[in-house]
Amino acid sequence: MVQLIVDQLLAYDIRKVVVSPGSRNAPFSIAFDEHPEIETFVVHDERSAGFIALGMAQELGETIALCCTSGSACLNYYPAISEAYYRSIPLLVLTADRPAAWINHGDGQTIVQRDVFKNHVLGSLELDEDLFEQKALETHQVELATLLSVTKSAWKGPIHVNVGLNEPLYQTVEKNLDFGKQLAIEPPVKRIDTKAMATIVQEINQSKVLVLCGQMEQNPKLQQELIKLASFPNIVVLVENTSNVQHERFIHCIDRTLNGFDPSNEAFKPELLITVGGAVVSKRIKAYLRTAGIQKHYKIGAEFPEMDTYRSLSQAFSIAPEAFFEQLNEHELLANSHNFNGKWKAVDIVAKDRSQEFISEFRSLTDIQVFQNIQDFLPEESVLHLANSSVVRYAQLFDPLPGVRYESNRGTSGIDGSTSTALGAAIVHPSKQHVLISGDISFLYDSNALWYEPFPRNFKMLVIQNYGGGIFQIIPGPADSKQREKYFEAKQVKSPASIAQAFGLQTKTISSLEELTEYLPLFFDPSCETQVLEVQTDDVNNAKDLDRYFEFLRN
Amino acid sequence: MVQLIVDQLLAYDIRKVVVSPGSRNAPFSIAFDEHPEIETFVVHDERSAGFIALGMAQELGETIALCCTSGSACLNYYPAISEAYYRSIPLLVLTADRPAAWINHGDGQTIVQRDVFKNHVLGSLELDEDLFEQKALETHQVELATLLSVTKSAWKGPIHVNVGLNEPLYQTVEKNLDFGKQLAIEPPVKRIDTKAMATIVQEINQSKVLVLCGQMEQNPKLQQELIKLASFPNIVVLVENTSNVQHERFIHCIDRTLNGFDPSNEAFKPELLITVGGAVVSKRIKAYLRTAGIQKHYKIGAEFPEMDTYRSLSQAFSIAPEAFFEQLNEHELLANSHNFNGKWKAVDIVAKDRSQEFISEFRSLTDIQVFQNIQDFLPEESVLHLANSSVVRYAQLFDPLPGVRYESNRGTSGIDGSTSTALGAAIVHPSKQHVLISGDISFLYDSNALWYEPFPRNFKMLVIQNYGGGIFQIIPGPADSKQREKYFEAKQVKSPASIAQAFGLQTKTISSLEELTEYLPLFFDPSCETQVLEVQTDDVNNAKDLDRYFEFLRN
Repeated sequence: MVQLIVDQLLAYDIRKVVVSPGSRNAPFSIAFDEHPEIETFVVHDERSAGFIALGMAQELGETIALCCTSGSACLNYYPAISEAYYRSIPLLVLTADRPAAWINHGDGQTIVQRDVFKNHVLGSLELDEDLFEQKALETHQVELATLLSVTKSAWKGPIHVNVGLNEPLYQTVEKNLDFGKQLAIEPPVKRIDTKAMATIVQEINQSKVLVLCGQMEQNPKLQQELIKLASFPNIVVLVENTSNVQHERFIHCIDRTLNGFDPSNEAFKPELLITVGGAVVSKRIKAYLRTAGIQKHYKIGAEFPEMDTYRSLSQAFSIAPEAFFEQLNEHELLANSHNFNGKWKAVDIVAKDRSQEFISEFRSLTDIQVFQNIQDFLPEESVLHLANSSVVRYAQLFDPLPGVRYESNRGTSGIDGSTSTALGAAIVHPSKQHVLISGDISFLYDSNALWYEPFPRNFKMLVIQNYGGGIFQIIPGPADSKQREKYFEAKQVKSPASIAQAFGLQTKTISSLEELTEYLPLFFDPSCETQVLEVQTDDVNNAKDLDRYFEFLRN
Repeated sequence: MVQLIVDQLLAYDIRKVVVSPGSRNAPFSIAFDEHPEIETFVVHDERSAGFIALGMAQELGETIALCCTSGSACLNYYPAISEAYYRSIPLLVLTADRPAAWINHGDGQTIVQRDVFKNHVLGSLELDEDLFEQKALETHQVELATLLSVTKSAWKGPIHVNVGLNEPLYQTVEKNLDFGKQLAIEPPVKRIDTKAMATIVQEINQSKVLVLCGQMEQNPKLQQELIKLASFPNIVVLVENTSNVQHERFIHCIDRTLNGFDPSNEAFKPELLITVGGAVVSKRIKAYLRTAGIQKHYKIGAEFPEMDTYRSLSQAFSIAPEAFFEQLNEHELLANSHNFNGKWKAVDIVAKDRSQEFISEFRSLTDIQVFQNIQDFLPEESVLHLANSSVVRYAQLFDPLPGVRYESNRGTSGIDGSTSTALGAAIVHPSKQHVLISGDISFLYDSNALWYEPFPRNFKMLVIQNYGGGIFQIIPGPADSKQREKYFEAKQVKSPASIAQAFGLQTKTISSLEELTEYLPLFFDPSCETQVLEVQTDDVNNAKDLDRYFEFLRN
């Protein structure tokens, strides 16, 4: 049974496994370790392990397996599983268990693992050593292959295999028998119906069109198609850093631009909305579009076809976005009379100028200044990981840097695994510089990421110590509530640098703008041994500077 | 709606809430904070928060509420919820959510929270601001009261209330309207059927009887009844430290005693098994009883009536154990001719003597010596918290200390929350000395417990630094496997004391037996400011000493 699972993993190109040490999963640990084609990574804390695997899958674009012992261990995977689910990132969660006959009968480390992730996996399978021989091997093969097909389909995500194993657990007598079997998979839709496309073209030609890109992986083909599209005066393309498409024709900083016009101004209101990608960071654009009275909304992509974020969904097209736009660009779009693009772009350009003017004027070290400095000094070709929750919002105020890839856990937007996710990405891509920007709460929450060994040298962490909860200074919140500090800001005084030191990492702490400007280029140099840079910002002025920033932009 | 929930909590005597800071749960945070009868505790990491609440509920014997924001936050509660479920400890899990109409529609921090804990709660309820007025207030009251009744019933455990809330979240206009309403609850069964008891008495009089106690809270009444029972020569009472009943007539150290006779010896085999309480730590007794060919097994208690740990269950009696044994002791039991008790007790006494002889002979600092020293120096009236997994097993080799209460997360036996659980207990009972004994892996896993402020002075942690995975030296395991260190022992070299220091706690590190013997009395003195004592044991000899110990006992 163990051998069947291992062989099926290989048949579906799953070659990396994050293992958390335990007893019940020993047969898998041994089998993975002994297999020459499988690479294993040992992570003690299953919560961190889940996010590390997520980061690996995100970085490599391949399915990563997780493997843990029975009992509550697997529940610690759940935050990462939910993130993978909403980001459509493929993870295979392999949980060792007692055979079903022993569940809820008082054995140690036993819970009801069957279907425990039901709300947030794309499929699950129960395998039980006691019942295994009741079915033909071929039946098991097909069942496993069917589940694993999810990792090759257009809509990917986490899947769960729960395996009931008897003792003894420390012998493996099976040899490599090659039980691997891959099912033929229906190729993804490459083109949509010609008639449907004709209608879409007609709609586009008649409308003010807003294309909104959510979180996506880098996709040069899609970027190219979107650039073509953005040349039409009736089409505006809105992207975020985490969309990973960049061009001067796009609006990159949504909040900064929205801040520059009156939401009731009809000239800015789209008639047709086209959305691609995953989560959108900007709360403002969501609120704006939900009330803008949009007549039509096309959603492009295989994932979550019924997701109606803007309460205007007309049709979902289960097709890769690059294929959709390529087909669209084959048609002759009309350079119609709407100067919709020009209106948005004008506001964007003014906002950008004002923004730079504002930031260059101030000399105290507030959160916004940290991001300006990252903008100035981050090396090209870096991968920039943005922790939740205030960091990712601040970052959206600045144009994306050329050559930089942006990553963030925006599936569930949790603060629980930002460091581990970035770490996982850095582990599997050692030739690339990975930089995490994190707030102190998010960093401390996931400090067990630092337990990993050997800790990758290509991973740098900049932790903004604003003593908790900067998020409530940036989203509409309880600014006046007397309980703000206690309940919303998560006020705390632990030192991220000290904790990183205790885990054996080199750190540096900085508390002035001059130091930051001086040190950042050194910090980002690959030869620098500092891995954690704690930047203590002026928590009294952080919120004020941000308010003044938006006010300055409006005037 | 918020007010209804708050009032119902009070109606069911829930007055302590562990709140994790967030935005969506702000209306609750504000309501709890403003209410004079509710005490709130702020914990950032929801995983730790869950276990802290569990420790509070365990210590006080009352229901504790948990409250978090929407999204993956609540998933971090899950390990503690599963532990509470299997320990029958009442927790109210209050999760803030978006209204149901916004689930899976791309809003940030949104997952499918409905029924997400289904496998491990005793009940759940969905409340939604959008749909609230569709039902009469009385209907909501009754639904909530029905769910909350679980906290007052004989079989307790975690329950889940998921609450969909709209923005804005930072105003609370409701006043105290007293929506609280408690339902009448059926009193627990006080006596079992007379005829059934007559049969039980007859069975007992004719049989060699083994009473096996699992994990229980202190229960003087039950202890008294068991002492009476243990005076009969055909009745043996087996308890563990975590049973929290002590008497010289009982067998306290199960493994030590089982080690002293041949399992095939018929003289030791029970014919009738009576079990009370929760989880049993000893794997040996489980294996022994499963193969002993027991004819009858009575299970006493309201929880998990179908749980058949020894594959011999004849009947489950849903009655409090103390009531069952009180009724039984009203009958005249026969001092029949079986000298069953004497046989077990003789082995026990020999094992105890041999054990003391062995331990006094060795002078290097191995794990077992740490426990001998705790035995010698732990103050009476302490609460001793035993972390999973090797610590709780080592502790069972020694007789329970008079006046000491023993606690451990044996519901799921996870290593994920031992420190937080002990911390929770210490927070709510500051007049009591709480001591946690933990291994290094368990301690590092749950290091976010140390984030809590203000950190209670009555809480001391002794961390055995055996560089991971001592457990596989104490349970049958992969002793010869070449992968042992990597996969099963969780080999690691981080320093628990350094990490505790980074969190601002005073620590001390010890690595010889002389130092330990000298320092422990100081450490346990309430005036000593050291809160974390790292004891570095001889990891080369830990396993050898334990093997020699069991061998010495056999000869």
